[in-house]
Amino acid sequence: MLVAVFAGDGIGPEIMAQARRVLDALDLGLRFEEGLVGGAAYKAVGHPLPPETLDVAKRADAILFGAVGDFDCDHLERHLRPEQAILGLRKALTLFSNLRPAKVFPQLAGASALKQEVASAIDLLIVRELNGDVYFGEKGMRKTADGLREGYDVMSYNEAEVRRIAHSAFKAAQVRRGKLCSVDKANVLETSQLWRDVVIEVAAEYPDVELSHMYVDNAAMQLVRNPGQFDVIVTGNLFGDILSDQASMCVGSIGMLASASLDANGKGLYEPIHGSAPDIAGQGKANPLATILSAAMMLRYSLGMAEAADRIEGAVAKALEGGARSFDLGGTMTTQQMGDAVLAVL
Amino acid sequence: MLVAVFAGDGIGPEIMAQARRVLDALDLGLRFEEGLVGGAAYKAVGHPLPPETLDVAKRADAILFGAVGDFDCDHLERHLRPEQAILGLRKALTLFSNLRPAKVFPQLAGASALKQEVASAIDLLIVRELNGDVYFGEKGMRKTADGLREGYDVMSYNEAEVRRIAHSAFKAAQVRRGKLCSVDKANVLETSQLWRDVVIEVAAEYPDVELSHMYVDNAAMQLVRNPGQFDVIVTGNLFGDILSDQASMCVGSIGMLASASLDANGKGLYEPIHGSAPDIAGQGKANPLATILSAAMMLRYSLGMAEAADRIEGAVAKALEGGARSFDLGGTMTTQQMGDAVLAVL
Ligand SMILES: CC(C)[C@H](C(=O)O)[C@@H](O)C(=O)O
Ligand SMILES: CC(C)[C@H](C(=O)O)[C@@H](O)C(=O)O
Repeated sequence: MLVAVFAGDGIGPEIMAQARRVLDALDLGLRFEEGLVGGAAYKAVGHPLPPETLDVAKRADAILFGAVGDFDCDHLERHLRPEQAILGLRKALTLFSNLRPAKVFPQLAGASALKQEVASAIDLLIVRELNGDVYFGEKGMRKTADGLREGYDVMSYNEAEVRRIAHSAFKAAQVRRGKLCSVDKANVLETSQLWRDVVIEVAAEYPDVELSHMYVDNAAMQLVRNPGQFDVIVTGNLFGDILSDQASMCVGSIGMLASASLDANGKGLYEPIHGSAPDIAGQGKANPLATILSAAMMLRYSLGMAEAADRIEGAVAKALEGGARSFDLGGTMTTQQMGDAVLAVL
Repeated sequence: MLVAVFAGDGIGPEIMAQARRVLDALDLGLRFEEGLVGGAAYKAVGHPLPPETLDVAKRADAILFGAVGDFDCDHLERHLRPEQAILGLRKALTLFSNLRPAKVFPQLAGASALKQEVASAIDLLIVRELNGDVYFGEKGMRKTADGLREGYDVMSYNEAEVRRIAHSAFKAAQVRRGKLCSVDKANVLETSQLWRDVVIEVAAEYPDVELSHMYVDNAAMQLVRNPGQFDVIVTGNLFGDILSDQASMCVGSIGMLASASLDANGKGLYEPIHGSAPDIAGQGKANPLATILSAAMMLRYSLGMAEAADRIEGAVAKALEGGARSFDLGGTMTTQQMGDAVLAVL
């Protein structure tokens, strides 16, 4: 099996190096091909998602992704910015279903800004649509009738796009606690009204799942007030971007959280939910565990190697129990030492 | 001076009654005219914002607003839904600047789901743009080339819209701690890029204010992790809807929070940030303090009666100190009893 390895910008290379060490140690017979993405790719070859990289991604059985984002590139035209690497991969490979589990690690209870009894109840999965919404509609700068500069972006969803993500979410709820909350802003947006209508249609096929609806402003409140009330949340690309980051922070340790972005056949891209963190890049301060756990998710969901995934997840838990703490977890261990701690258990 | 009083739906009439008692007790020589809004207006006269109501709003010096929203009306065409009352008033009166302060009441420290040391540091003001964004762009249902149903909404801001809200926000920051954080999603949205460009232009006129920029997903995280870092946040209509509700919940007592929506001349609409809460309507369980504090804000910002505003705010604080607690604050006092407690101090 071929794994595409795209380290990207900022702390990407450091954290990816540790994930590779862990995968190598398990000796799973995987082949790896690296590719340039993001600001690193732009600086090397003039484009954030070069054709060679896209080619590796297409040939691979799964993609392990670090992070993209580089302030040096903020002045570039939009299509040349680092973020286009991840947006381009999601779109080109039809990775429409983003799974972002948020659950408190018992070893790290207390790390959240939420009261411990509130945070420890968190065990939710956000299913975020990744191929549509205002991310991919027509957009640009234009002039108003009065000659004023105006920026615009068209938000939209069609019924096929909503239906496929709704199926992902209902299926995920079936193998969890059977509760699905669809988040939208149907009191203001037609895009949301269509979303809500279609989710309700799809619900007929899942009588075993309890469906509810919530406005996004209320969801942002409930994720603070009582995040334990949620099992699976399904939402669009933009609201999912905001709420999934909020939920991750409620858990208290974003350096620990992995995510999967899947196509209809289970091929996927796996990445830590934290970003490229340019402020600490190259200092050995980054926590590699989210990337290591992303690798485990990849083994489980795309490569059919659940047992190896279990071993990695178990090793991470043991390393934490043994006291492994990087800077974000209040400790002093370097990126490499965190990798060592996981490898020592394996 | 004429005050328009629009109680609206759900708990609106109950909480408004207490605010009226407080205003009456101060004997300020105000005249009041009531008007129908929301689902209540639709049920009575077939439209959520009848022309008579709009006329009162236009003639008034300020508007005191309860809440709108009624599940009975969810099936109606969009232009007949209760929400159109508040959206219509904001637009018709050019109430573009929504000020939503969030600060922990010392008497209620501990009410937040956030750890007490995190929550008690909250003292921020969200300045939300109210007249533009995806709320008011072209929207509708259409068919794709393949005949699929598609919902769409156009998001946009022009430079004049951004400039006027930026000035509101910089001015607010000048009389607070001099820090302004502009929240957008410029890595994905052209609307946000224009927003960011114009905010930077306006910043040149406020060298005494320290400006920073944050992506909305990160802002949602930071409001959980360390909300004490913010002084003033300025953002668009949609992101402001989400983040201001999130920030309110971080404070822990949304039954206490007031908001102002102002035009360029200081005329304003004042409303509690909680909604119509249909589940507890008519039971005397609603907390009227946010509406009473909205009335105080109205006296201060639109009617030039700062002293009366001080008296109301002081009376609310005293009532809390005296132990006044409605259901949302963990107590058992009814809406009327909460009003009594404030009046007893006055
Ligand atoms: C980098 C950015 C374009 C991206 C997004 O908004 O989708 C990121 O925030 C994420 O959530 O993966
Ligand atoms: C009722 C609704 C249309 C409104 C909004 O989204 O602006 C509300 O959530 C608010 O924040 O005032």
